[in-house]
Amino acid sequence: MEVEAPTEEMRTAESLALTEELARLEPEDRAVEFRKLGKDAAAMAFDALDPPQQAELVDALTSDRVRELITELDPDDRARLLDEVPAGVARRLLAQLSPRERWMTADLLGYPPESAGRIMSPEVLSLHAGQSAEEALTRVRARGRDAETLYVLPVRDRQRRLLGVTSLRDIVLAEPETGVSELMNADHPVVSAYDDQEKVARLIQEADLLAVPVVDREHRLLGLVTVDDALEVLEIEDTEDIARAGGGVEPLRAPYFSVSVQKIVRSRIVWLTLLIAAATLTVTVLSAFEATLEQVVTLSLFIPLLIGTGGNCGAQAATTITRALAVGDVRIADLPSVLAREVRVGLMLGAVFAIVGFPLITVLFDRDIAEVVSLSLLATCTWATLVGGMLPLAASRAGIDPAVVSAPLVTTLVDATGLLIYFGIAQVILI
Amino acid sequence: MEVEAPTEEMRTAESLALTEELARLEPEDRAVEFRKLGKDAAAMAFDALDPPQQAELVDALTSDRVRELITELDPDDRARLLDEVPAGVARRLLAQLSPRERWMTADLLGYPPESAGRIMSPEVLSLHAGQSAEEALTRVRARGRDAETLYVLPVRDRQRRLLGVTSLRDIVLAEPETGVSELMNADHPVVSAYDDQEKVARLIQEADLLAVPVVDREHRLLGLVTVDDALEVLEIEDTEDIARAGGGVEPLRAPYFSVSVQKIVRSRIVWLTLLIAAATLTVTVLSAFEATLEQVVTLSLFIPLLIGTGGNCGAQAATTITRALAVGDVRIADLPSVLAREVRVGLMLGAVFAIVGFPLITVLFDRDIAEVVSLSLLATCTWATLVGGMLPLAASRAGIDPAVVSAPLVTTLVDATGLLIYFGIAQVILI
Repeated sequence: MEVEAPTEEMRTAESLALTEELARLEPEDRAVEFRKLGKDAAAMAFDALDPPQQAELVDALTSDRVRELITELDPDDRARLLDEVPAGVARRLLAQLSPRERWMTADLLGYPPESAGRIMSPEVLSLHAGQSAEEALTRVRARGRDAETLYVLPVRDRQRRLLGVTSLRDIVLAEPETGVSELMNADHPVVSAYDDQEKVARLIQEADLLAVPVVDREHRLLGLVTVDDALEVLEIEDTEDIARAGGGVEPLRAPYFSVSVQKIVRSRIVWLTLLIAAATLTVTVLSAFEATLEQVVTLSLFIPLLIGTGGNCGAQAATTITRALAVGDVRIADLPSVLAREVRVGLMLGAVFAIVGFPLITVLFDRDIAEVVSLSLLATCTWATLVGGMLPLAASRAGIDPAVVSAPLVTTLVDATGLLIYFGIAQVILI
Repeated sequence: MEVEAPTEEMRTAESLALTEELARLEPEDRAVEFRKLGKDAAAMAFDALDPPQQAELVDALTSDRVRELITELDPDDRARLLDEVPAGVARRLLAQLSPRERWMTADLLGYPPESAGRIMSPEVLSLHAGQSAEEALTRVRARGRDAETLYVLPVRDRQRRLLGVTSLRDIVLAEPETGVSELMNADHPVVSAYDDQEKVARLIQEADLLAVPVVDREHRLLGLVTVDDALEVLEIEDTEDIARAGGGVEPLRAPYFSVSVQKIVRSRIVWLTLLIAAATLTVTVLSAFEATLEQVVTLSLFIPLLIGTGGNCGAQAATTITRALAVGDVRIADLPSVLAREVRVGLMLGAVFAIVGFPLITVLFDRDIAEVVSLSLLATCTWATLVGGMLPLAASRAGIDPAVVSAPLVTTLVDATGLLIYFGIAQVILI
């Protein structure tokens, strides 16, 4: 028996730095630098790149080189890469694999995108419930080389149905004659191949698991989703959430400098156009009140402050509720309690600003304007907080990712209604 | 040798659901529900709660019950809890621990908050370079029960200096007579106890590690940061980033429903007040142009649209660059290249909106207003994108967390300068 180089440790500090440098290059330079690498360094660096960057490299490299790189990837990483390249290229790449590798990869591709089936590793070492710890250890020694992990060992019956989970740690620490069934936890969390990848990743995170078994509808073992896949999924999902929450940007899915300026423009312009279209509502509202504005020009001075504050209140509520939904603290059915809480929050915030603002504006402008602005602050803060709290839940109920109903969208929607509130109050008090 | 219950698997699907339910309760109800739990269920549920919630429970429970719960925690989780309770309570809790447990916990508390030293597990099983795989396995069997993980096994010399890392997998799969030094990866990433916890967590994520050894200045082994700690750190950091990016909210650090309305108001009001203070700048700018507004009231109709678009452009750039900084794709020294790219992005975005907007506004209003608004869109988009790209890098250089210079702050700052640009252009063209 030869001692195999440990895959996990092969990714040394140096190869990490190398990959980081490669990821920062523009696509053309990356292919040039990549060609200079030795076989092992190339395989490690390729593995660490994101699938879109891998796809670009595949385009730029010769097919011998590509075959070497593809063969070195784990089946789940390969499935993700094949999603990125054009269908023709994917077929050619699959054809170059050994039958076993091809079968495993194609199998993963049969599950829906972003499902547990896509990110699971089919290379699992499983044990039988009837084995002893000693027999299990012998099996690990004989068959453990190809398994992605030995630290979560599923236990199954003769029909490949999952009975529970044990670990290399328990097998090693147990008395040799102990039965695997005694070392097994039958209540270990299990997921379906059709479960959403983010849900699976959050389960791994919350339950501190190293891996979770994936089963089919008959509870037969299909593979394992490991913690490193969970980390990658969560980074992608969180990057998406941050991008949408912060600016309504589509996430770049690749390091900043490796994305062309044109692609950055494209990642931003769709949202911006949508937001500008929504913002034309504010022009319409203000046109309707043009006569009022002509009479009391001072009203226009507070427009940015009022809609800005309303927008910020709404954005805060939307961000809080969207995140609470994502991590599972709030559910769609909680809508009434969320609204009850957010109305109170909005009223308190609005009251504070109204009470502080009233004397200040009275001194600097006049009492009537101070009344209008203070009352508008109170009403706008309450309304915006309510809308911001409601929209993510409404989106979620309608089957839309709540992160899409992000802060900028809430802000823009609240702008127009905030102006209606402001001029409504102004007309009652001033005219 | 007794077979110990496997810690990792003890957290079953049921206990997860239980903890989730507990976390959703208001603090007072939680203590009531908690008292009803059996000893094991209580220990598991307590472990899974966030430190602030643990601290509240400690207040509400009797001290016998508390001692049981504290003893069951890992030293690193205990250190985090002790940070949350008042100093007097922390001293009392420490006094109740066994000398060994107390020593380990107090040791962790000596490192700065948010450092690797705080989150590392000091219960490490290490091997000697001179051992064989068989001797190593014997050592694992004899001493492995208390170690937090056996899957990353640091290898050290007689002075406790770290030489490299191996794993239970490699030890088990190797021929018995193979030396540990042959199974060891000397280039495995290592961190200092004073390194920032987010940096360490990102290293674990990027290098797909199960744990990373922590050393002191003399390269002596102090402990391990494990992947589950990394997942927790990244969730906290990402929640913080999302909160700040989306709404300028301080993250709640506990499930939404377990936080009182007063605390939610407090988490939002500081930022809102700061943003309102910044927004008074817009009142000042508009006051300066009050005469222009009186002459051309139509100008005020486009104020929300213009500053909204500028704000969104700035927010997008800030969000993109802040995230790129957080994940290490962009560094402070990249400032010139970032600005060069963002100016081009801003110009392209502004040009598109100006070209589309000009004929529309000409038809709906008049040609002069269309000129003013289109030119302002071009200038504001460019300026906002530039400022949004620059501020996170400037903050980072000044030693401020770039996430603080978040989308809402950029938006508010850009509002006032956007108005200056708008009225500057208006005065040249219209008056």
